Amino acid sequence: MSRVTTAPEEDRLNAQIAFAVEIDKLKRVIRRNSLMDGSRRENDAEHSWFVGLLAMVLGEHAPPGTDIQRVVAMLLVHDLVEIDAGDTFIYDAAAVAAQPELERAAADRIFAMLPGAQGAELRALWEEFEERATPEARFAKALDRFAPILANHHTEGGTWPLFKVTATQVREKVRIIEEGSPSLGAYALELVALSVTRGHLAE
Amino acid sequence: MSRVTTAPEEDRLNAQIAFAVEIDKLKRVIRRNSLMDGSRRENDAEHSWFVGLLAMVLGEHAPPGTDIQRVVAMLLVHDLVEIDAGDTFIYDAAAVAAQPELERAAADRIFAMLPGAQGAELRALWEEFEERATPEARFAKALDRFAPILANHHTEGGTWPLFKVTATQVREKVRIIEEGSPSLGAYALELVALSVTRGHLAE
Repeated sequence: MSRVTTAPEEDRLNAQIAFAVEIDKLKRVIRRNSLMDGSRRENDAEHSWFVGLLAMVLGEHAPPGTDIQRVVAMLLVHDLVEIDAGDTFIYDAAAVAAQPELERAAADRIFAMLPGAQGAELRALWEEFEERATPEARFAKALDRFAPILANHHTEGGTWPLFKVTATQVREKVRIIEEGSPSLGAYALELVALSVTRGHLAE
Repeated sequence: MSRVTTAPEEDRLNAQIAFAVEIDKLKRVIRRNSLMDGSRRENDAEHSWFVGLLAMVLGEHAPPGTDIQRVVAMLLVHDLVEIDAGDTFIYDAAAVAAQPELERAAADRIFAMLPGAQGAELRALWEEFEERATPEARFAKALDRFAPILANHHTEGGTWPLFKVTATQVREKVRIIEEGSPSLGAYALELVALSVTRGHLAE
C-alpha cells in the first residue's frame, strides 16, 4: 500500500507490513509429513505454530536455564527461508547438501525487507537455530525434529513408507533430538520402536 | 501411546504429548478470511503463527513497556478453544453471543489435559487475552483483528463482499485495534478507506 505521508515511523511500519504480507507465503510451503489425522500434508506456517507452542508446553524437558521465550521466537522464524528455498526432505541427501546456499540467499532477501536492525535481529535468530551452538537452538531443533516423528507415529507411519524411510534413518535423526533434550530423544526412540513393532516403519 | 514405566516425570510428558496431539486439530479449524493470495481460506493454526510473528515484528507499535514475549505466548494459545467451539464470525451477532459459553467449556476440557499448574497457566493466558484488561492482551487482540483486515485488503476485499460486510462494520471492529495500538488502528482505517475507494468494500 502506498501512503500519503512518509515520516520515518511510517516508513518503518510500511516495511514491516510489506514483510508481513510476504511471509504469508509460508502458509503455502508444504512439508513431507501429514497432520495427526492424516487428512492432508502440513504446511510450514502451521508447523511453526505447532513447534512454537510445543516449546512452551515441553520447556521443562530442555536443559535447566534454557530461555524458552527465545526458543519460541526462534521457532516462529525458523522456516521463513523456505518461502524461497522450499521445504527440504531431511532424508534426501542431495537436497540437504544444496540447502544451505539456497537458504542463505532466501535469508538475504526476506529479512532485508525489515528495517535494518530489526531484520538483522530476526536473521540472527534463524542463524542461531541453524548453528545449534546454544541450548535454545538445540532445543528448538529437537522440537522441529520431534514433531514429524510424532505425526508419522500417529498416522500409522504416515509418510515414512511413502518416502521409503527406514527406522535406522529415523534413529539417526533422533540424535539431534537427544542433543536438545535427552528425555524427548528417549521418547522419540520409543515412538520409533513402537512404529516398527506395529509394522508402520521398516527396520 | 502407553508407556511401560510411569514415573511422575513420564506421566507429565505423556500428558503433554497427548495435549500436543489434541491441539493439532487447530490446523483443521477454518477461518472466514483467505490467505493473502486468495488461494484458500486460512486455518486457525497458521493464523496463530502469523499473529505471533506479527507481534515480534510490530512490537514497537504497542504501548511502551508491553511485554511482547507474553503477547506472543498469548497469541499462540488464543484460538485453542476453537478446536471445540469453532471459529466465530465476528459479524454474526448470534454466534458472537453464544461464543463465550462454548469457549469456556472448550477451555475446561482442553487445558485440563495438561498437568495441573501448567494447564492453569496456559488457560490464564487465554483468559487474559479474552478480558483485554492488560496492555499485552489489548495488543494481542489488536493483531488478531488487524490480520484479517490486511488479508481482505490484499485480496480485493476478500471475504468481505462474500459475507456482505460493510465498511461501517469493519470500522467498528477497528476500535479494538486502536485500543491496543493507536498507530495500527490508524493504519487499519487507511486500509478500510482504500478498500472502499477501490470498490472492494461497501460503505
